Amino acid sequence: MKPRRREHAFSDARERRRGSGAGAAAEAVARRPFLLGIAGGTGSGKTTLARDLLRQFEGSACLIELDCYYRDRSDLTLQQRQLLNYDEPSAIDHDLLCQHLGVLLGGAPIARPCYSFAEHARLPRVENVAPAPLVILEGLFALAHESVRQLLDFKVFVDAPADVRFIRRLRRDCLERGRTMESVIAQYLATVRPMHLAHIEPTRDFADLVVSGQELERESAASVLRLLEKKMVR
Amino acid sequence: MKPRRREHAFSDARERRRGSGAGAAAEAVARRPFLLGIAGGTGSGKTTLARDLLRQFEGSACLIELDCYYRDRSDLTLQQRQLLNYDEPSAIDHDLLCQHLGVLLGGAPIARPCYSFAEHARLPRVENVAPAPLVILEGLFALAHESVRQLLDFKVFVDAPADVRFIRRLRRDCLERGRTMESVIAQYLATVRPMHLAHIEPTRDFADLVVSGQELERESAASVLRLLEKKMVR
Repeated sequence: MKPRRREHAFSDARERRRGSGAGAAAEAVARRPFLLGIAGGTGSGKTTLARDLLRQFEGSACLIELDCYYRDRSDLTLQQRQLLNYDEPSAIDHDLLCQHLGVLLGGAPIARPCYSFAEHARLPRVENVAPAPLVILEGLFALAHESVRQLLDFKVFVDAPADVRFIRRLRRDCLERGRTMESVIAQYLATVRPMHLAHIEPTRDFADLVVSGQELERESAASVLRLLEKKMVR
Repeated sequence: MKPRRREHAFSDARERRRGSGAGAAAEAVARRPFLLGIAGGTGSGKTTLARDLLRQFEGSACLIELDCYYRDRSDLTLQQRQLLNYDEPSAIDHDLLCQHLGVLLGGAPIARPCYSFAEHARLPRVENVAPAPLVILEGLFALAHESVRQLLDFKVFVDAPADVRFIRRLRRDCLERGRTMESVIAQYLATVRPMHLAHIEPTRDFADLVVSGQELERESAASVLRLLEKKMVR
């Protein structure tokens, strides 16, 4: 199935909001971008869903990956940085993230940080992200921090069975990142799995919608779209 | 912690049953071996639990592994046998299994079949299993077949999270059986996982006791032991 562009449906929704005739204040509210949060465990399919929605809203949406907002710890040595725990929400620079989301919601562009997982440090360069009617925030901890949740208009949790998630991660890390099976297993059991149970799985309760990351991505994207369109025309 | 022999506790229980003074019929009932069933998914820890109990009841228990009772399909070619589904209960020769359990419960020895997974066929040799006061039946499908369940005095299901179970299976198959990671993943997703959900997970409902295969085996063994001793003194 070929991805369809959804910009028309989305424009229609915005036109309807503008056409409600409730004056300048309503117009300002209607113009505020819609902020969608997508969380889920490792290998759940959240990135696939986010990218699929981005394609369908092409030209009307921008994507913020939480992974870009890991704290800059270049004050530490590489060896010290390798010992930090990157699987808990405090590893994310939530102050900067909230500030950037606020700027995008205000209709202005941001200079998004770039992060190197190899170096465990923020890179010197930034990437400009233009504001858009739909802002998609995607990442492990997208629903973990209260100040972020308060900004979100709609919260999605992507769910998949733990064995399926682990197999996806194992394949990705071995095939795309050249890791060994034993190192992936060791890291998964030592930090990824316990941190998932402690910090990610509980954020499912905050979700407005839980979708399956196991079904065809297209189906999950379609169910998010249906609800988004309803939410956005309100 | 060193395994303790439990034969004394077990003998005590049997002595108490014999000492109830209810006559010859009660004596016959008391003499009937106690049949314990242990089921659970791949990598759940059921084999570890069964072997741990066997050690603790050393001299008073025998172990029947369901894996020995795969149907003999030596009427087919090896190529044909490789195409059969070994992950569903009908792959087990339940007629022979029930017959052998009946013989052991009657206090007589059996000639247990030997099965080769490499050949997908029963081997020409058999192994003599002597009857014992405690008969432990262990395997994926130990609680799957009604005629077997009716014989069981106590039914245990060993449970562990799906990702942990998969990791154990992956390690075992790669390290001990020389399989490749991709072949283990492919077989798991194609047959092991769907057959688990269809035929093994539902048998948890038949269990008298669900124990964790994730905790120290010793703890699960101890909780089974406590309940067994209660059941056996009745």
